[in-house]
This record gives sequence, C-alpha cells and structure tokens, in this order.
Amino acid sequence: MTNLTIALDAMGGDFGPRITVPACLRALASNPHLKILLVGQPDSISPLLANQNAELISRLQVIPAEHIVANDAKPSQAIRASKGTSMRVALDLVKTGEAQACVSAGNTGVLMGLAKLRLNAIDGIERPALVSILPNQKKGKTVVLDLGANVNCDSKMLVQFAVMGAVMAEEIAEIDSPKVALLNIGEEESKGLDNIREAATVLKSTPNINYIGYVEGNELLTGKTDVLVCDGFAGNVSLKTMEGVIRVFLSLIKSSTTENKKTSWWMKILKKWLQKRLIKRFGHMNPDQYNGASLLGLRGIVIKSHGGANESAFTAAIEQAVHAVERKIPERIASRLTTVLPKSD
Amino acid sequence: MTNLTIALDAMGGDFGPRITVPACLRALASNPHLKILLVGQPDSISPLLANQNAELISRLQVIPAEHIVANDAKPSQAIRASKGTSMRVALDLVKTGEAQACVSAGNTGVLMGLAKLRLNAIDGIERPALVSILPNQKKGKTVVLDLGANVNCDSKMLVQFAVMGAVMAEEIAEIDSPKVALLNIGEEESKGLDNIREAATVLKSTPNINYIGYVEGNELLTGKTDVLVCDGFAGNVSLKTMEGVIRVFLSLIKSSTTENKKTSWWMKILKKWLQKRLIKRFGHMNPDQYNGASLLGLRGIVIKSHGGANESAFTAAIEQAVHAVERKIPERIASRLTTVLPKSD
Repeated sequence: MTNLTIALDAMGGDFGPRITVPACLRALASNPHLKILLVGQPDSISPLLANQNAELISRLQVIPAEHIVANDAKPSQAIRASKGTSMRVALDLVKTGEAQACVSAGNTGVLMGLAKLRLNAIDGIERPALVSILPNQKKGKTVVLDLGANVNCDSKMLVQFAVMGAVMAEEIAEIDSPKVALLNIGEEESKGLDNIREAATVLKSTPNINYIGYVEGNELLTGKTDVLVCDGFAGNVSLKTMEGVIRVFLSLIKSSTTENKKTSWWMKILKKWLQKRLIKRFGHMNPDQYNGASLLGLRGIVIKSHGGANESAFTAAIEQAVHAVERKIPERIASRLTTVLPKSD
Repeated sequence: MTNLTIALDAMGGDFGPRITVPACLRALASNPHLKILLVGQPDSISPLLANQNAELISRLQVIPAEHIVANDAKPSQAIRASKGTSMRVALDLVKTGEAQACVSAGNTGVLMGLAKLRLNAIDGIERPALVSILPNQKKGKTVVLDLGANVNCDSKMLVQFAVMGAVMAEEIAEIDSPKVALLNIGEEESKGLDNIREAATVLKSTPNINYIGYVEGNELLTGKTDVLVCDGFAGNVSLKTMEGVIRVFLSLIKSSTTENKKTSWWMKILKKWLQKRLIKRFGHMNPDQYNGASLLGLRGIVIKSHGGANESAFTAAIEQAVHAVERKIPERIASRLTTVLPKSD
C-alpha cells in the first residue's frame, strides 16, 4: 500500500473550515487508505469535527497554524510574512515528506510563489503553471495551461508550458503524440501578441512537440487540440468564461420546467425526467466536477482549488490530489521533461 | 424617410460573395427602405444575382473593386496596399456620405486601421474599439469592449473604452447610470496586470462613471455589470470561449434525441418538442443571432462581422448596421463623450 497522506490548507478560500472540513470528511470516506493533515486554527476546525464518524477522525490530524494568508494579499508581501500561515505549513509538510500532496483554496499568487520557494521547480522550468484537464466534445480530454499562476508570460515560459502540457497529456490523459496549440485571437500567423508569435516560432522547430498552430477561444471544448497553451491572464479569462456560461445554461435548464402553469401533470413528470437527463448529460461539464488545478512544474504535488469552491467542488480538488499521488505525476513529468525540453542556450 | 444606404464589403470573410450576397438579399427583403452598395469583384457577384427578385435588385448596386484584403494580411502592410480593395472602397462610401454605414467580415486589424484612417476617430478617442451588446441572464444587456481591435491597451485606452461603453449602455441599451467593471482574474485590488490596475484608479475618481470594480470571466452573462471593459486580446478570448461553449451546448441538446433506440414514438415526439423549446430558450444566446460588433469611436458606422459568419449571421450584422444608422449612434456618442470624458492632462 502506498503511503497516501495529503496536507490540507483548512483556512484557504472564501469559506475556510466551513467548506474544507466537511469536504475532507467526504474524501476520507471515499478513500479508505487516505490520511489527511488538516492545517489551520484548531478553534475553528474542532467544532466541525465533533460527533463525526470515529473511523474517519482516526485518519485525520489537525496541525495547528494560527495565521491565514488573506485572499486579497499582495503576493510579494504575503510571501515574506507567510511564516506560520496554514498555507505555508501545509506546503512544508510536502517538503518534509510528511505529506505527498498539498491542497489549498487560498490566494493563487501567494500559493504559486510559496510553492516555488518551498518545493522548488523541476530543472528546466522557470515558473510553474496552473493546469486543468477539461472534458471535450469528442469525449476526450484537453490539457489547458496556464490558468492564472503567471499573468505576464514571455515566449520562453509559453514554450515550457507547452512541453509540460504535452507530457501531462501523454502521461495522464494517455494521448499519443498530443496536439499542442497556442491560444490566440486568430489562426493566421500574423495574429496576436509578440510573445505568442515568438513561442510559435520555437514550437514549430521543437522536434518532440506536435505543434498545430493557433486556436481561438471557441475551440476550448471542441477537442481540436489536446493541449492548449496561454498566459495565465488569458487562460483564467477563458476558463472562468466557460464556467460562467455553463452555469447559466444549467440554471436555464433547471428553471425551464417552472415556466408554464397550464402544463398537465404527466407532462411535468416527463419534463422533469428529461431535464434530469440533460443535466446528467452536461454534468461532466459542471465546473464543480473538475475543480482543482495542479501547479505543474514543481518537485511536489500542489492542487489549487477555486476560492469559492463549495463542499463537493473542494472534495473534487482533494480527489485530484489523491490521483496525482497515485500516478506519481511530478516524477513522471520530471523524467519526461529532460528528453523533451529544448536545451537552453 | 431617412436615407438608409449601407456599403457592404462583399469580398471579406472566409466565404466572400457566396455568403455576403444572399445575406444582402435577405436584409433587403426585410428592410423595404434599405439600399445596399455591394462592393467587390463583379465577376464573382453577378452570377449570384441572376434570377433574383427584381424589386430587391433595384435597391442594390454593385460597386466594382478588384482587390481583396487577405484574411491573413499583416495590418500595417495591408493598409499601405489597400487602394482599390473592396474594404477600403466600402469605407470610402461612408466617408463621402454615399453610404451611412459599412459592413465587412474582413481582416479585423486592417478594418480597424483603415476605418480610423478613412473615417477618423471621435475627439478624445485614441483608438476605436470593437463592441458587442450581449444578452444576459437577467434578461438585460451587457456592453462588452474591446473584442479584438486592440491587442495591446494602456490604461488610458481602457478608460476611454469604459467611457464609450457607458455611453453606449445609456444611449443604446437604455440603462440609467450603467455599472462599469474591468475584466480581471480576481476581484481583489491587487490582482491582474498594471494597465488594469491603473485604469481602475482613474475610473474610481471619474465622476460620471459608475465604476463597480473588477469582475471575472464567469460574470460575462450574469448581468453583474452593464459594461465590461477589457483589452482586445482578453475580450476576444472571452467572447470566443462563450460562443464555443454555447455551440457545444446547442449541439449536445440537438443530439440528445438520437441517443436511445428503444424510445417509444410518443416519447420521441415529446422529446423533440422539449428540445425545440430548449433551443428556442437558448436561441437568444446563439452566436449567429448577435453577430456583428460595432467599431466604436469613429465618425461613422462600421460593423465587423465574424470572418466565418454564415448567411444568417451576416444578415444579423447588416441588420445591426441598419439599427445603428436609425439610432444615429456615432452622433449620440460623440455628443455625450464631451461631457463624460475625463479632460486629458
């Protein structure tokens, strides 16, 4: 049995322990070999653990940390003042090997900066990137990065993201020779920003990368590319837009039965049934189902949950950490990177 | 009766006259007072006009232009070499007053640059922006700009976009004191890029603007803000992502009846009926329905259609031009701008 211990920043996110503690109990219930180190203020955590299942509690340990990284903190300042925060303590548990992964819904910029400082980047990677694997229309998967860890990216970083994304697609999504594209505002070579055009030039001549060119935002879910590379600003805008549109659609479907009062009872039942089927059909696209982006490029597993994640979304982020540990993602990526990464000049 | 003549770049877009000519006939049929100046290569246009309704043809005049701006042309070069292109001839018809608006599905960068050169910008506006009015979840409208005319924007441009967007929301969407927000990757003040943070500082102290702060991509359709301001890269990524997700949803709904072969006939009929209702319900979000973004900030009306627009989408872009002429958008915006625009230092 592999050792499977995850450090959880209990205080991060918009709701803190109110969400993270119940999510942690759910993850423990569905993973009988999982242990969780719950890092945060014991006073806020303990009441939420009262009267819970003793077996689950036996696999959970509260690690005290009195300070909290503020959601609106400026990364540079917050990193300097991070000692004793639940986020840093949780990351350090990965550093020392007491945990195999860390999950946090806290401030993205601080998590990214702290993770890089405490866990270090894989050789050849300048800046880690936030990556998600999204379901696509072709029933396959699309690896998208960066989703918000780096708002300013030069062409070199984009190339490194492309390489990490390709390895992730091969190793995790099990896609042979994955197609790699750069997100741009047109498919023509002259389009977009300088860093994107420069990255395109490099990727075209990188032998181990199956570079297919630019794609636009409308291809995010179509499966046209297996790996979609962009800077953290554009990636975050695209992902959040997608999530927003899906939520609007799901809420429109849900409200579509209450429209007409004259509908007969059997019609209502049928509509409810069909509605359920539609929600199920679109369910795999529900943002809560794939909450949790990996911070890729580090010597350790760090999963960033949405700050506003609800209980089931935060549980999904913990499950992602479990899978990442089981599949040894950082080791596999590090070993593949050395063969794929273009030699730096 | 107002004079209502629109110049159409018949050659622009991915499909040229094959799409633009039938769309033009449809627009003529639904607007009995409309006249269209169809600019392009007579040899490609004339065959498509053969055997068409004589009354429609009587309100249509082909203006010969032998050259075409390539979809993948670099704006700076293409603008220098633009003499005799259908795009430039169409814009010049607006300049001389022979037409009140121009519609093109051609190269965005070239259209933007040429339009600025031929029609000039409104006083106080450095760069025109592409703007669309999107339907939102609250059954209201959201003005979004820039959607791709300017990939690099400094804070001054973002502030001007905010002002133009607010005026558009008041004058066209008829919203009192419209809420204005900047698109960012978090709601906290420290988030995002320098130009966005600088624009926020200016907007906060601009008395005629109801600035509400940052919003993220997931708020594009929720109606949280009436005006959403961003640079052309982020705006294009967000809009295209939205369109892509909506298309995926519509296609999932359409395919959801063919799933199960054992379904009884009456169930099939019911499902078809419900499916139709759902498509109708989401129909107002179908990208084809609101194709056409206005190039805002010019002394004239220029509507940019999607390059890949189909016949009904291109017709929607022509209809937008008709409405813009009827509502005298540039004049109303220019006259309001003088009272709202912060004095330049």
